[in-house]
Amino acid sequence: MQAPFSTLSEFQTTLAQAPGPDADALAGAADRNGQLTKPPGALGRLEDLAIWYAGWRGMARPQISAPQVIIFAGNHGVCAQGVSAFPPEVTVQMVANFEHGGAAINQLSQAFGAKMDVYPLQLDQPTQDFTQGPAMTEAEVIAALQTGWAAVDPASDLLVTGEMGIGNTTAAAAVAAAVLGGEAADWTGRGTGVDDAGLDRKTDVVARGLALHATDNPLEALRCLGGRELAAMAGAIAAARHHSIPVILDGFICTAAAAVLAKAHDGALDHAIAGHLSAEGAHQRMLDALGKAPLLSLGLRLGEGSGAALAIGVLKGAIACHSGMATFAEAGVSDG
Amino acid sequence: MQAPFSTLSEFQTTLAQAPGPDADALAGAADRNGQLTKPPGALGRLEDLAIWYAGWRGMARPQISAPQVIIFAGNHGVCAQGVSAFPPEVTVQMVANFEHGGAAINQLSQAFGAKMDVYPLQLDQPTQDFTQGPAMTEAEVIAALQTGWAAVDPASDLLVTGEMGIGNTTAAAAVAAAVLGGEAADWTGRGTGVDDAGLDRKTDVVARGLALHATDNPLEALRCLGGRELAAMAGAIAAARHHSIPVILDGFICTAAAAVLAKAHDGALDHAIAGHLSAEGAHQRMLDALGKAPLLSLGLRLGEGSGAALAIGVLKGAIACHSGMATFAEAGVSDG
Repeated sequence: MQAPFSTLSEFQTTLAQAPGPDADALAGAADRNGQLTKPPGALGRLEDLAIWYAGWRGMARPQISAPQVIIFAGNHGVCAQGVSAFPPEVTVQMVANFEHGGAAINQLSQAFGAKMDVYPLQLDQPTQDFTQGPAMTEAEVIAALQTGWAAVDPASDLLVTGEMGIGNTTAAAAVAAAVLGGEAADWTGRGTGVDDAGLDRKTDVVARGLALHATDNPLEALRCLGGRELAAMAGAIAAARHHSIPVILDGFICTAAAAVLAKAHDGALDHAIAGHLSAEGAHQRMLDALGKAPLLSLGLRLGEGSGAALAIGVLKGAIACHSGMATFAEAGVSDG
Repeated sequence: MQAPFSTLSEFQTTLAQAPGPDADALAGAADRNGQLTKPPGALGRLEDLAIWYAGWRGMARPQISAPQVIIFAGNHGVCAQGVSAFPPEVTVQMVANFEHGGAAINQLSQAFGAKMDVYPLQLDQPTQDFTQGPAMTEAEVIAALQTGWAAVDPASDLLVTGEMGIGNTTAAAAVAAAVLGGEAADWTGRGTGVDDAGLDRKTDVVARGLALHATDNPLEALRCLGGRELAAMAGAIAAARHHSIPVILDGFICTAAAAVLAKAHDGALDHAIAGHLSAEGAHQRMLDALGKAPLLSLGLRLGEGSGAALAIGVLKGAIACHSGMATFAEAGVSDG
């Protein structure tokens, strides 16, 4: 579906006009939850998840039958600064791996019944090195936001956005620092596994980017410090909201992209939950800043949407219980 | 399959003769894990899970295609002491709910592709009130252990044991205190939701049971303080080991039953992982005592195998990645 914006200012307006959850569905789901054959609260967070999902889907007894996983890939000029343990050509190699079904996210998407789409974003034209100038022009960031927006299938009922991009933990750290505050060192981590010297270099690169692109505008921070795959994820998450499709956030890079939305417009992530806590050091700080408690904490730090895809299983379990269980009355069970 | 024991002493011998993991499969799985298209360690605990599972299944690249969930139900004489918020007739009502497909565990079993079997254990003959005498005779506890053993399908490739039994958090607390040490208050919690007075009463009941049945023998503790569904779960977990079937432990009651095995024979739970951390207060203490880190922590406290069934999804995701991903060589991806 075509994106309803062609400037960052229009994208900002789009965020402000996004729909909220359905109050009747929320109330109906909460009522149903109270009648199911279990002690009150005994399914813990599964109960909250089911009611949340019901509200966004606008039905008290929803199903999850069409999850979509979208992987966006981008390359980063900042790799010239030696910020990654892997060479930039791995981005295009991994896109081929996604397309041939060999990556972790392929297996997880299949395991949890999700359709998976892959969008390589001009991999032969890396963003500009953000220590030298803005990573993207407005036209470039808008194109990426629009690609992300259009990638969302309006008929899907759950969205996971994932990414691949050598160097993108550096971009994500810079974006996070710009929109959430704090120092470069607060947000910079080891990514795919840089050594101590690499981490120092990466932190310095992030600090220089922040110094060069001081801004109070989260969308400008995305343009100057982010990357195409971050912008595309932000566009997709915004589109999901437009279509009343709940979102499961993945790890550090996905959450940094999402943080741009949350800071651009209050409540812009209310339709999103945190799928997992990544082992990338600053992800906890990022989730705390967004007020999101992760569903899983299993030490993943792969990206690709992998942690979020794994959390599809948890959400499916929650909805299966909510919508499939008998009530006390239906089952003839005494309710205490 | 018929159980190879007819006394507690023979059951103890059975535990001592249980097989270990396959060293070749462990080594092969670890080697494969190192070649997959991801940065080393980037799948976190999923990698450990896959290697663990491969070892117990005896193949370096295993699948999960036949999980089995078994629910055992029992009634407890100790309910006469007013230890539960629900009346004992709920046990038989919930068994009917399981049989008609209306409970949470039905939905979760279906969602994760598990076969589910239900074993009501002489619900019209509650165990004896353990404040008055041993909960079970040796013949009774052996019968329950044998039922649990025979309930395991040797052709399954993953086992979850769950339970239903009004009053069984009281029995589980007493068993845990007897085999893991500590005071009644350390192990007694609110179960399905007793109030403060109920909790005090429950703690006193556990303390009286412990005083009456002091023993150093974990299997005797199971007989004197446990219940048929706890013994059946222990029998099933032991049978799974015999058949090289990995086990996902559920919450407080399941883990208490499993703790009996761990204390009866060192390493008897090496084929088992903790599916989740229950909201029942002392479950963390129990998992700590067994050295098991839970996969999930979502505030569930339902029993029925529900938390473990939810964790089937995580384990399936781990195995899907391990066995389905391409290697760096296969995918033509540079490995850093």
